[in-house]
Amino acid sequence: MPPRILEVRTKILKKNDEIARALRARFAEHGLFVINVVSSPGAGKTELLAQLMTMLREQGLRPAAVVGDLATENDALRLSASGCPAKQILTGSMCHLEADMVETALDGFDLDDFDILFIENVGNLVCPQSFDLGEDLRVLLFPCTEGEDKPLKYPTLINTCDLVLFAKMDIAEAVGFDTELARRNCAQARPGVAIIETSARAGVGIDALARTIVEKQKIKRREATNLV
Amino acid sequence: MPPRILEVRTKILKKNDEIARALRARFAEHGLFVINVVSSPGAGKTELLAQLMTMLREQGLRPAAVVGDLATENDALRLSASGCPAKQILTGSMCHLEADMVETALDGFDLDDFDILFIENVGNLVCPQSFDLGEDLRVLLFPCTEGEDKPLKYPTLINTCDLVLFAKMDIAEAVGFDTELARRNCAQARPGVAIIETSARAGVGIDALARTIVEKQKIKRREATNLV
Repeated sequence: MPPRILEVRTKILKKNDEIARALRARFAEHGLFVINVVSSPGAGKTELLAQLMTMLREQGLRPAAVVGDLATENDALRLSASGCPAKQILTGSMCHLEADMVETALDGFDLDDFDILFIENVGNLVCPQSFDLGEDLRVLLFPCTEGEDKPLKYPTLINTCDLVLFAKMDIAEAVGFDTELARRNCAQARPGVAIIETSARAGVGIDALARTIVEKQKIKRREATNLV
Repeated sequence: MPPRILEVRTKILKKNDEIARALRARFAEHGLFVINVVSSPGAGKTELLAQLMTMLREQGLRPAAVVGDLATENDALRLSASGCPAKQILTGSMCHLEADMVETALDGFDLDDFDILFIENVGNLVCPQSFDLGEDLRVLLFPCTEGEDKPLKYPTLINTCDLVLFAKMDIAEAVGFDTELARRNCAQARPGVAIIETSARAGVGIDALARTIVEKQKIKRREATNLV
């Protein structure tokens, strides 16, 4: 990139990092565990999150969500069906969420009302990578329909993820998805990354995902308590 | 966007437009019909193009391709299997192709050796929109696995497309894809846009697509001859 563009980009990222740091401190203060969910468009983030939030709510937790799209309120409406609060962020022509959009979206939410906040990012396998949103966990949804080679061809985002969810696994056989090859490719792009196989339609893996999130949330709470 | 960022973005786009204009003139001079193929990651661009290029070659045409990815030469190798020349553009962390990348990739190609050039863009449903590559035709691949609402939630790119291909239609029933709803959503985002239903795996729609391309190429040639 030419020096001037690089300089402007560095400034944007620096400003984003400052806001993300403030958000992270605020989330910690309210004991809120925050998950940034990223993927290509149409990977099934909303459907999976709606089921996950329903399950967490039934277990006595209090999840909420903010969701980014270029246009329409469709996803916030679909997430609200879980019985949990959900807010839409409209990005216009912006291809990713930035920390200040999340900050603005939280206006009117009392963070003490929630334990877990999901941030459903704009569907994009590249651009959300550089933008910290103050999250505790970054989760990548990787649908079997995209083919096994995506982690190698688009390594940018998986490199910053803490957890990978294989998605739409009910049609893995129909699309000829080679699960072991996909696992190897994930491990090559991001050695040691945890993978959970899921299917929102078949209700598979949602319980394992809920358990993982609750465990990680507990660890964070314990760490926070030890720090006091 | 802040004024300074907007200014830099405007400059990038202006420079890109100048290079794209020069490319378009060069393509016209060599009688080359150029198609920019865009979609989300994993929509099936490469598989469809490999079949399409094979078919066009068997009909006596001379297609070639350049293909953008963040990493790996996988797609150029897969396209070469069609028996046509294909070159990989590695974009690093860049989320779209720009005209100068295409220009560089054409080094070493004699444009008189080809009738049709496919530019397979980086998988991204947002960012390639603003970047003219000097193409005659912009084609959007929209796989049924992404759900019917994508044209409404990501209107940016479809707004600039000349042709939409519904893809992976062999599993439309398995994923519960509502084709009529998807058609209505496309028409709402881009009134009057042509749609072809395809499945690379089942070999469906490739012939219709080849016919459309050959027709459009002939029209362009005729127009070019009339101008002389």
